[in-house]
Amino acid sequence: MEKIFNKKIKEIMTKDIIYSSPDEGVIKAFEILLKHKISCLPIVDADKKIMGIITTTDIGYNLIIDKYTIDTKVSDVMTKKVISVNPENTILDAINKMDEFGYSKEIINQLPVVEEDNKLVGIISDGDIIRVLSKSLKK
Amino acid sequence: MEKIFNKKIKEIMTKDIIYSSPDEGVIKAFEILLKHKISCLPIVDADKKIMGIITTTDIGYNLIIDKYTIDTKVSDVMTKKVISVNPENTILDAINKMDEFGYSKEIINQLPVVEEDNKLVGIISDGDIIRVLSKSLKK
Repeated sequence: MEKIFNKKIKEIMTKDIIYSSPDEGVIKAFEILLKHKISCLPIVDADKKIMGIITTTDIGYNLIIDKYTIDTKVSDVMTKKVISVNPENTILDAINKMDEFGYSKEIINQLPVVEEDNKLVGIISDGDIIRVLSKSLKK
Repeated sequence: MEKIFNKKIKEIMTKDIIYSSPDEGVIKAFEILLKHKISCLPIVDADKKIMGIITTTDIGYNLIIDKYTIDTKVSDVMTKKVISVNPENTILDAINKMDEFGYSKEIINQLPVVEEDNKLVGIISDGDIIRVLSKSLKK
């Protein structure tokens, strides 16, 4: 059973990722999040190297209270200190990072998966992990 | 290590829950979700019995494309078939339900915790489970 936690992230991550660029408008980015029913959007440069991240939770309330305008760019509001993992890391590494770097009582629900050169190759979510655990522990 | 999955939901659930009523406006409910940085809002009657649930994911896109009006009520759009767990169920029960009843590739990220009479007593999220696993498996 321990084995499941040693599975590599690359085996379970989502590879087909929706992402955006730093010069995207924040209102447009919020629409992308809601349209695709995702809760985080990695922000990458032209080489797909990760530059930041935005989440529905982070920007949603500021947006509806009109704190942002049509000119506000993703780069103005994104979290630049991105907590990421490597595809060769294990599920346990991801669980520990989600917990350790969460704010207050929260965990980080999604971690971008990046290679050594910071290039985005996937996303791993708490949901991906719960699903893998469920399959391996099915009653 | 197996033991962690047999822990009871009541030991790890969030008891201090934000909820709303069926006659709340859906725009107001969306504001509540974003303001409190939560992704689901259980809908209860006067006796706190669960009647439905709404999530940012479910209503967000319809809302920004103006599918709802100021008169749209939570009861018009809420999911009425609520997947819930009992406080005496185990973490493994929650993991299996999150996986089994998720839509397509997604899991259900939060399950309301209800007693036999359907009274809402807590919420358990995938994040709560990841956190407990992290603490018990810390490297």
